[in-house]
Amino acid sequence: MPRMLLVLKPGCSDADRRRILDALAAGGADVREVPDLAVPVLAVTGDLERLRDVALEVFPGVAQVVRVAKPWTLASRSYRADPTVVRVGDTLVGGPGRFTLIAGPCAVESYDTLFETARAVKAAGADLLRGGAYKPRTSPYAFRGLGLEGLRMLREASRAVGLPTVSEVTDPRHVEACVSNVDMLQIGTRNMSNFDLLVEVGRSGHPVLLKRGRDATVDDWLLAAEYVLSQGNPKVVLCERGVRGFDPATRNTLDLAAVAVVRAKSHLPVIVDPSHATGLSAYVAPMARAACAAGADGLMVEVHCRPTEARCDAAQALTPEAFAALVADVRRIHAAMRPPAPTPAPAS
Amino acid sequence: MPRMLLVLKPGCSDADRRRILDALAAGGADVREVPDLAVPVLAVTGDLERLRDVALEVFPGVAQVVRVAKPWTLASRSYRADPTVVRVGDTLVGGPGRFTLIAGPCAVESYDTLFETARAVKAAGADLLRGGAYKPRTSPYAFRGLGLEGLRMLREASRAVGLPTVSEVTDPRHVEACVSNVDMLQIGTRNMSNFDLLVEVGRSGHPVLLKRGRDATVDDWLLAAEYVLSQGNPKVVLCERGVRGFDPATRNTLDLAAVAVVRAKSHLPVIVDPSHATGLSAYVAPMARAACAAGADGLMVEVHCRPTEARCDAAQALTPEAFAALVADVRRIHAAMRPPAPTPAPAS
Amino acid sequence: MPRMLLVLKPGCSDADRRRILDALAAGGADVREVPDLAVPVLAVTGDLERLRDVALEVFPGVAQVVRVAKPWTLASRSYRADPTVVRVGDTLVGGPGRFTLIAGPCAVESYDTLFETARAVKAAGADLLRGGAYKPRTSPYAFRGLGLEGLRMLREASRAVGLPTVSEVTDPRHVEACVSNVDMLQIGTRNMSNFDLLVEVGRSGHPVLLKRGRDATVDDWLLAAEYVLSQGNPKVVLCERGVRGFDPATRNTLDLAAVAVVRAKSHLPVIVDPSHATGLSAYVAPMARAACAAGADGLMVEVHCRPTEARCDAAQALTPEAFAALVADVRRIHAAMRPPAPTPAPAS
Amino acid sequence: MPRMLLVLKPGCSDADRRRILDALAAGGADVREVPDLAVPVLAVTGDLERLRDVALEVFPGVAQVVRVAKPWTLASRSYRADPTVVRVGDTLVGGPGRFTLIAGPCAVESYDTLFETARAVKAAGADLLRGGAYKPRTSPYAFRGLGLEGLRMLREASRAVGLPTVSEVTDPRHVEACVSNVDMLQIGTRNMSNFDLLVEVGRSGHPVLLKRGRDATVDDWLLAAEYVLSQGNPKVVLCERGVRGFDPATRNTLDLAAVAVVRAKSHLPVIVDPSHATGLSAYVAPMARAACAAGADGLMVEVHCRPTEARCDAAQALTPEAFAALVADVRRIHAAMRPPAPTPAPAS
Repeated sequence: MPRMLLVLKPGCSDADRRRILDALAAGGADVREVPDLAVPVLAVTGDLERLRDVALEVFPGVAQVVRVAKPWTLASRSYRADPTVVRVGDTLVGGPGRFTLIAGPCAVESYDTLFETARAVKAAGADLLRGGAYKPRTSPYAFRGLGLEGLRMLREASRAVGLPTVSEVTDPRHVEACVSNVDMLQIGTRNMSNFDLLVEVGRSGHPVLLKRGRDATVDDWLLAAEYVLSQGNPKVVLCERGVRGFDPATRNTLDLAAVAVVRAKSHLPVIVDPSHATGLSAYVAPMARAACAAGADGLMVEVHCRPTEARCDAAQALTPEAFAALVADVRRIHAAMRPPAPTPAPAS
Repeated sequence: MPRMLLVLKPGCSDADRRRILDALAAGGADVREVPDLAVPVLAVTGDLERLRDVALEVFPGVAQVVRVAKPWTLASRSYRADPTVVRVGDTLVGGPGRFTLIAGPCAVESYDTLFETARAVKAAGADLLRGGAYKPRTSPYAFRGLGLEGLRMLREASRAVGLPTVSEVTDPRHVEACVSNVDMLQIGTRNMSNFDLLVEVGRSGHPVLLKRGRDATVDDWLLAAEYVLSQGNPKVVLCERGVRGFDPATRNTLDLAAVAVVRAKSHLPVIVDPSHATGLSAYVAPMARAACAAGADGLMVEVHCRPTEARCDAAQALTPEAFAALVADVRRIHAAMRPPAPTPAPAS
Repeated sequence: MPRMLLVLKPGCSDADRRRILDALAAGGADVREVPDLAVPVLAVTGDLERLRDVALEVFPGVAQVVRVAKPWTLASRSYRADPTVVRVGDTLVGGPGRFTLIAGPCAVESYDTLFETARAVKAAGADLLRGGAYKPRTSPYAFRGLGLEGLRMLREASRAVGLPTVSEVTDPRHVEACVSNVDMLQIGTRNMSNFDLLVEVGRSGHPVLLKRGRDATVDDWLLAAEYVLSQGNPKVVLCERGVRGFDPATRNTLDLAAVAVVRAKSHLPVIVDPSHATGLSAYVAPMARAACAAGADGLMVEVHCRPTEARCDAAQALTPEAFAALVADVRRIHAAMRPPAPTPAPAS
Repeated sequence: MPRMLLVLKPGCSDADRRRILDALAAGGADVREVPDLAVPVLAVTGDLERLRDVALEVFPGVAQVVRVAKPWTLASRSYRADPTVVRVGDTLVGGPGRFTLIAGPCAVESYDTLFETARAVKAAGADLLRGGAYKPRTSPYAFRGLGLEGLRMLREASRAVGLPTVSEVTDPRHVEACVSNVDMLQIGTRNMSNFDLLVEVGRSGHPVLLKRGRDATVDDWLLAAEYVLSQGNPKVVLCERGVRGFDPATRNTLDLAAVAVVRAKSHLPVIVDPSHATGLSAYVAPMARAACAAGADGLMVEVHCRPTEARCDAAQALTPEAFAALVADVRRIHAAMRPPAPTPAPAS
């Protein structure tokens, strides 16, 4: 699939050139020199599958390798022009004119707070309920979630309030239990490059919410999505949640341009998590509005019925009242955007 | 003004403690020990002005210095609670319910393109005309602007179309000529920490558009504003234009959360430049909408009547038609936001 | 364990203060106000274990929370003053005067290249043999390693040339197979925050080489080490391999100051991987020398008997000849550093 | 000078292609299509000087622009293969086998401390004396240096102890006074992109120490050097001093690989400032050793006869005793590196 141009170094020796041509020939490529340029350039065509793992950059005579085709395919717009719509329970994510709200506590902590928060976010207009049962925490001494018990609570809350659920999975050995209990599997920022886990959620066929790694370019992120898609699972929703930045004023640097970049490069839906991005509840509403205006397909927001009692990431949780105000704001902004085209059918 | 807590190291020797107390006493501070903590902590009060340049962190026994008061004052909300409104010619920037559009070419290149672009942005609803006469360019071989001749063209264009102007100043020796010809002085990202220049534009009393340095935290940026304010010039408008990030998908990483952070910490107006932030015209409109929804006081957008002929940053320039569509989008979003409180009077 | 100071906001209301005091009392803390400061400050002592998950930052009246004690313990110098020495097979890592060289191919590809490379690095003075059997790759279509077959090849190569081995583990389900076949388990940069995996390698009791996450601060990294240590496994060696930076001139930004920071904060050995840090073989030798001079306990270097045939990361692999020259350089620099103190006994 | 390849979009229309070809023809370029690739590619040759400011990336049909030649020339190895040696007073900087030590206080504060420190660093083996008279400070309320008076003190100290001097210039209006009083002009990190200032120090013909911008890639930095060189001033020494990073453990992230990158791309000497890079005196010595081993041409280190009295950056200043120990360490490491080739003559 990749076609490429090899820019050689001006003084590339004949021996170095010979080694490059041999490697290309061994890989089954067709090569021609582009004549009359300031420096020698080789144009490489043919079936380059066997050259995939040959590091042409390493050859002494090579100055630059320009790969003409993108490294991913299933996630790209050129593979599928229409936006993908992912069905999660009864809810759809993605497609023009649709804006999906995921809300709930950072972690499932107890029956009472989960049910109270679930009812509140449902009443405020949420489409999906979030809640972590397996919590990756920077410190081994912090609360790490209720595990399987938490998943079961989520399932009951889902039935009680009538919202499909999403919860994070961090270990390939937990995928089965998560599939049985929740409607969508979240891959958190710390596990975006946990490829064994990506393969496992790909195989499950279950809807996947794939958060961007804190250190990932958009291309890295789309290649992580490709891990899931290449297992035959098309139900991937991307979630921007901020990257590592140098300003401690916010927990991460929310990269809203990534929403536009994903839109240009891929057919997958993309939502935004303003809670983890900023880490402070005061900044969640403005960034939620901005995400909507940037063209995101939805939001994931942390809401807790009593934030000061939350055992995890309390500083960024909204009260139900603040969430309801945010929903009203965002719905008005969404309505003010251009009239949408008709929505395509879901991918699944 | 600063009051502080000095956390000492657990094993701080008596001699080390003595040296610390001597330095504090020499600086005129009052010191008491906070009793019964796990580690020794000194509470420091009094007039600490003379301690400003004493690096207490360097003393062997000191583990941490907690300065209780913020390092800036004139730019902070605690100095002035109401939002500042800056008058530029007949136009106001800042204050609730107002959204100001600055548009025009990256560089002033010729009478014809400047006048044609100026008329087009005025027709589309711009409030101020931008155009660079002194262009900081990464390469010394790139087009660096028309200088004084460009400033004069701007003044003529301003009169012809009836828009006040903003143009970048890069050298203290040019401040006077810029003040004579344009209505607002722009400090670009590369000069945010050019403190001699900041002092000079502060002294001029002219309105200043202060772009965020590509490597600046919001606190660094507000301290740069403090350089201007402390010269007795209150007419400062901040402009977020992206910081250095690791993803080459966009030219810089637009940090829209900085708009919310500035709003929380400062009374100064803050606008957003989506053109330099993304570097690609396709991403300008979504980021302009997002900036509005995030609560910015306005936008600065590069528009060129014929982008493919632009001599500078053409990849990010909008056509007049694309700009007009952007204005319509942004106005609808602005109207959809909460009803504003009454606008205070301008600062100047 | 944590003792803290709570700096309250200047205008903190009585009701807000009451809520804070109630939360602290509910957590079992002792609280006193520090009198006569410019702002109210609460000094908090007692057994604060139950306050660990209470987000005091979120309370309306709180301006700043200063935790006096460090969040990690087992990895810190205050827990153990002497440097830890980790035994891997017959080889020791860490301790003054010792400098350990890990070398080998990025991936185990075939018997022939593995054995040839293993003999070459042994001859050049390597102390441990590296080779990846499970390779995390950004693209799902790249070569991902030989898996179990690769581990068995490594075991045979280890016996044949007489070098203990280190290989990456990426999935908790593979830990047992890795423990059976290699002498040290590597946690790669992408899995530094894969906490389920960290717990599993902690439980194994096997030596662990913990690479720094590309987006991790030194504190994050030491907390990842704490995950392993807190399972009762003291055999942790840290490996700096570059963090995300903005300059594409090198693959990552090698943060050699982190070696000095780790040395100041922790008793664990720390080595450096200049191959992944720079991504280009031409920069490996200067960075290897620099790592030695910075005080690292060793190096991990990619070596391949025929780099242009390598199926993975070929651009950064050294030839055996280049590696031998690097070893000679580094040994001379190591000898030129200060005469070491006597080496303590290994931790295990 | 630039030759380039234009990769067109797969579906590039005939009209879009026509516009591209017209623009290239208008710029005087010769164009041929590279046949039989997966996508259309245009090879562009001829005198492309007039295309320098045409943003080909902006044309609708263009997918990628590959510029084959580097954007800088005078700073590059291809312009001058031998290392440049810069003479500063009686001292030489650059060239194989030479290692130059610049030391002194951050700021010139008083006769007594300057002279005492100058004598101490001379005795410890320093080759040049540093001292700031114009200090760029993040806060307008911090000590900003003694200005002209400080320059005069430096000149006297230089004569008294027999060391040439380097001092920072921040304003084009101060260049003349600096040239009259010190032997080398320093451009600080905040002014690396202050192009008016670079042009002015270029015109002066005086030796220039050009620090890397905190947000600058190596290519940006070499283009800043090109500003000086292109004024006919070849006496440029580069200084790496750390870039913006996300880990607050050090003040900046020292990018020592940049030393190797500069060495590969440019003939200019490059030294390292471990004091500003780390911000903490405890990390200065290990990073100084690492810089030497990485192949730097020298060091710039902050030394103060009484660090606890320093009015600027005291946390990073070494005592004269610590500096003397550092010099001994670094000299041993330098001697342990490969035997150098003969040194070329100075550039000036």
